[in-house]
Amino acid sequence: MPLDAVRLDAESLLGRRQEVNAAGTIPHCVDNLGRTGVIANFQRLVGDVPGEFRGFWFADSDLYKTLEAIGWEMARTGTDRWDGLLSEVADLLEQVQTPNGYLNTRVQGTPGEEPFKHLEYSHELYCAGHLIQAAVAIHRGGRDPRFLAIARRFADLIVRTFDPGTGPLLDGHPEVETALIELYRETGEESYLRSAELQIERRGHRVLPAGHFGSQYAQDHLPVRAATEAIGHSVRQLYLAAGVTDLHLETGDETLLHAMEQLWDSAFGTKMYITGGHGSRHRDEAYGDPFELPPDRAYAETCASIAALQWCWRMLLATGQARYAEEMERALHNAIAASTSHDGTAFFYSNPLQLRTGHDGSHEDSPSERLPWYDCACCPPNLARLLASLHGYTATSDGSGLQLHLLTAGSFEAGPLTAVVETDYPWRGDVLVTIAGHGDLAVRIPSWAEGATVAVTAAEVLAEPAPGEYLRVSCQDGATVRLTLPMTPRLVRADRRTDAVRGCVAIQRGPIVYCVEQADLPDGVVIEQLSLDPSAAIVEEVAPDGVVRLRLSAVVSALDQTLYQPYQAASPTGTALTVTAIPYYTWANRGPGAMRVWLPLA
Amino acid sequence: MPLDAVRLDAESLLGRRQEVNAAGTIPHCVDNLGRTGVIANFQRLVGDVPGEFRGFWFADSDLYKTLEAIGWEMARTGTDRWDGLLSEVADLLEQVQTPNGYLNTRVQGTPGEEPFKHLEYSHELYCAGHLIQAAVAIHRGGRDPRFLAIARRFADLIVRTFDPGTGPLLDGHPEVETALIELYRETGEESYLRSAELQIERRGHRVLPAGHFGSQYAQDHLPVRAATEAIGHSVRQLYLAAGVTDLHLETGDETLLHAMEQLWDSAFGTKMYITGGHGSRHRDEAYGDPFELPPDRAYAETCASIAALQWCWRMLLATGQARYAEEMERALHNAIAASTSHDGTAFFYSNPLQLRTGHDGSHEDSPSERLPWYDCACCPPNLARLLASLHGYTATSDGSGLQLHLLTAGSFEAGPLTAVVETDYPWRGDVLVTIAGHGDLAVRIPSWAEGATVAVTAAEVLAEPAPGEYLRVSCQDGATVRLTLPMTPRLVRADRRTDAVRGCVAIQRGPIVYCVEQADLPDGVVIEQLSLDPSAAIVEEVAPDGVVRLRLSAVVSALDQTLYQPYQAASPTGTALTVTAIPYYTWANRGPGAMRVWLPLA
Repeated sequence: MPLDAVRLDAESLLGRRQEVNAAGTIPHCVDNLGRTGVIANFQRLVGDVPGEFRGFWFADSDLYKTLEAIGWEMARTGTDRWDGLLSEVADLLEQVQTPNGYLNTRVQGTPGEEPFKHLEYSHELYCAGHLIQAAVAIHRGGRDPRFLAIARRFADLIVRTFDPGTGPLLDGHPEVETALIELYRETGEESYLRSAELQIERRGHRVLPAGHFGSQYAQDHLPVRAATEAIGHSVRQLYLAAGVTDLHLETGDETLLHAMEQLWDSAFGTKMYITGGHGSRHRDEAYGDPFELPPDRAYAETCASIAALQWCWRMLLATGQARYAEEMERALHNAIAASTSHDGTAFFYSNPLQLRTGHDGSHEDSPSERLPWYDCACCPPNLARLLASLHGYTATSDGSGLQLHLLTAGSFEAGPLTAVVETDYPWRGDVLVTIAGHGDLAVRIPSWAEGATVAVTAAEVLAEPAPGEYLRVSCQDGATVRLTLPMTPRLVRADRRTDAVRGCVAIQRGPIVYCVEQADLPDGVVIEQLSLDPSAAIVEEVAPDGVVRLRLSAVVSALDQTLYQPYQAASPTGTALTVTAIPYYTWANRGPGAMRVWLPLA
Repeated sequence: MPLDAVRLDAESLLGRRQEVNAAGTIPHCVDNLGRTGVIANFQRLVGDVPGEFRGFWFADSDLYKTLEAIGWEMARTGTDRWDGLLSEVADLLEQVQTPNGYLNTRVQGTPGEEPFKHLEYSHELYCAGHLIQAAVAIHRGGRDPRFLAIARRFADLIVRTFDPGTGPLLDGHPEVETALIELYRETGEESYLRSAELQIERRGHRVLPAGHFGSQYAQDHLPVRAATEAIGHSVRQLYLAAGVTDLHLETGDETLLHAMEQLWDSAFGTKMYITGGHGSRHRDEAYGDPFELPPDRAYAETCASIAALQWCWRMLLATGQARYAEEMERALHNAIAASTSHDGTAFFYSNPLQLRTGHDGSHEDSPSERLPWYDCACCPPNLARLLASLHGYTATSDGSGLQLHLLTAGSFEAGPLTAVVETDYPWRGDVLVTIAGHGDLAVRIPSWAEGATVAVTAAEVLAEPAPGEYLRVSCQDGATVRLTLPMTPRLVRADRRTDAVRGCVAIQRGPIVYCVEQADLPDGVVIEQLSLDPSAAIVEEVAPDGVVRLRLSAVVSALDQTLYQPYQAASPTGTALTVTAIPYYTWANRGPGAMRVWLPLA
């Protein structure tokens, strides 16, 4: 849908996230671009500052992702807050870009380096992809056209350099594929689509030197049609999948879609955390074996959940199936939401589902609290660009009307009709849609919403609200569609092969996953003493800010004294305790302390 | 005890391991020193071969550990098989060693490198430590004295260079501490002890640059008296602890022992696998948080279990407490034994307690089967040196008699008495000790041996066989002590904080941990379908080679179809199946396939 066709209610949960992003995260990112030397890496190349290149190979992408966020934000609100910055940066990029279109401060700023010589780790096309995506966002919002020109010059260089099938072949980190296809969509220049296709078809033939972590780390282990198990570095896997799905969307190649459906089943059916996190291994930021989903050592990188959402969006566009939107919603309300502090200025890079008593949070690999920034700062600006464009992921339209994929209060203009959605979802299950104009309305019913009901005026229900499907209504002007979703808290268990959470349940209410934090336990009780009585009622408690907390009946048992001991059939006894569960995304906002999503059963 | 005072029965389980080590592992190590360029790194420096240094910074230590193994093996059996090799290597080392005593082929073989400039990662003192330990082994066996001279020249350089408190301070990888103290014991030269002390006292003040994994990776996060939680790289932690305990043994500093007792409780009471594996994290080869013990992603490096055994030995010498010997036995019969194939020529570097169906074993980080060698080949020669000296860890003697710490058939000479031990332990629980001479005999009773009995002739029982204590007997000439340990298979559970194995039990019989392998299941049943009926009897089955296998009553349930689903109180039903459990150390000898130590309860 056009960028200005959707507006989220600023008081809705998703709308508030966009406001926090605008007020907190984007300025915080801009500040850190300065502080960490990202901008200086460009300035140095035009002689403005002394010193050497600072940061990782892909430091430029921090700037580009922030620019993309600004582009979407300007389009969303019309703000002119960043006009000066954009103009300065465009000046810089124009000066740094070489006449042939190349632009990378790590390579240009390091004596002896040459373009495209170390693509297995240089991230040059990865950075180019983020430059292109920033340019598209800024261009789509109608601002400084120089960014698109800069991006096209680099894209043209990529087309020329990578086309002949000789010389450089592939970037170790997929990302440029979606970007080139987006640039093709923006400009109509087909060589960008073909260049993306070439990258995708070349991948998986082990043309890159296999580094310490093997070919799967760079997604170069199997061609994309054969690589149907989610494996290797999770962000690279998911960005690649998004690119392959984009290629299917533009070319109609069904063999690509078929492979992506199998890959999706592997990723989302055997390797995804209940929070929508992906990637269970810290070692190589990678997917583990099927059902290897430890909550404590969940890597669940924020960028992986963002990439997963982007892939799901493309699968949704390709198939119209509700399950893809449902997984977008899961990630958005849990793993992605949890990555950011309430004020949008501190972040988790990895998003564990458990923090133990005695956790060593001294290292940024597994901190006990969100940090303001990271040495590898890929996640914060990635969040910024996602949230600034979030409204664009909520709905689609076609000639017949509107499809609502993410439930949120807001307004949606879709060709023949305009819909206003009023709801406190995900806290309450009542959703009222009021239609102006006429046409078809589709509203996704989550798969957990057994017993959802609908009441309409001036409308005809074409498909009843079945869980995991779309409610479909033919609406006349002035129609109302009142949907009621059951919001009873649910105990959820994992596939029994998920050893790490055997004998445990998680608690969900609507799309929200809950957790228990040490901060809510009385003195003298540690979280590891708790088990849950699954037969007891769960009581809801609405906080002043509308957030629903849950009160659970737990049992507190004595801690064991010995690491290994004879098994005895009798269960431990304990004393009853009512404990509070909070939405997972709100954890770690009250100082460091233990936390659990999965609770043992009493 | 003197090296020749203990001889293990060649038919005993431990004795057979020494034979396999001599026939299989040591020659295999020697072959690989040639194949991988370790020897060539030395030859190149005297002009014999062209090319550049090959391997990791610590490649020299592969040679030194193999030399140490050869030293112990020559002392054990008097073999002259390696005389030629030793002579050639001594020639090489003498030529490569600089006049001031320095010797390191990575530094000497790399233009522009200088000694002791990158100690945070260079492993120069680590390699020196292994050179010293090799020299001590060869010297103690009475062979080529040049090794000790070479080692002393390097040790003297270390004393001179590191003493002033200026310049280089610490090696990132502890190891030289035990070596210097051993060299002090061998030579009486007190400066070696003082140099080890200096290294130990300097550690933990964050004097090394903290690399990617933080100060704890190099054990430089806290001074040794304050560092009472096992943390960071597990091998470095355990070698350091062995060195600190050695220092206590030589200086009597009780503050060191007190810290080591706390550290031991942390490592062995909250962070050790039931197999005696240490270190749960692949990322930085490190200890995890307390009770973070995933069986599938157990790192459990072979070298960590070897280091743990060496530390326990020193704690045993310091305190005489049976628990230290018990943990030596656990590691020896499980994690360490499992690391090596039956013929001693293939190895696990990491020793998981679970291999999933669908495991990706394509990378040497987590292979599905033992590999003949590793790029980082620290483990195979470490096994070789341990096994060649294994008899030295079985018993101690003092003026009054003999203390048997590891139960095995063999003969033991201890001052006033000689003991011959006849037993099929750990397969059978009958242990007959026959004494010549007279004096006190102490035999360790494992903590699981509730109901052990003793019958003596010509002897007086001073302390009855209590689990976790020593049976103590005053023996006359010709005395017999017949000990009977209960060998009933036991179901063992872990502390409930060990989330990764909640609802599971492991099976132990004596000191042996068992596992179930896919290879023993019928077609159409995968290991993830199994749960164990804990109330059913376990049937023992003695194989022709004496190994006891167990037959378990299991339930086979259908696999789940959905990753996350509503919790229901009803347990899954299934069909009964009798399955075979084999000793964990014998796993992965029948091709790749799934395996579990921890079995879910039905």
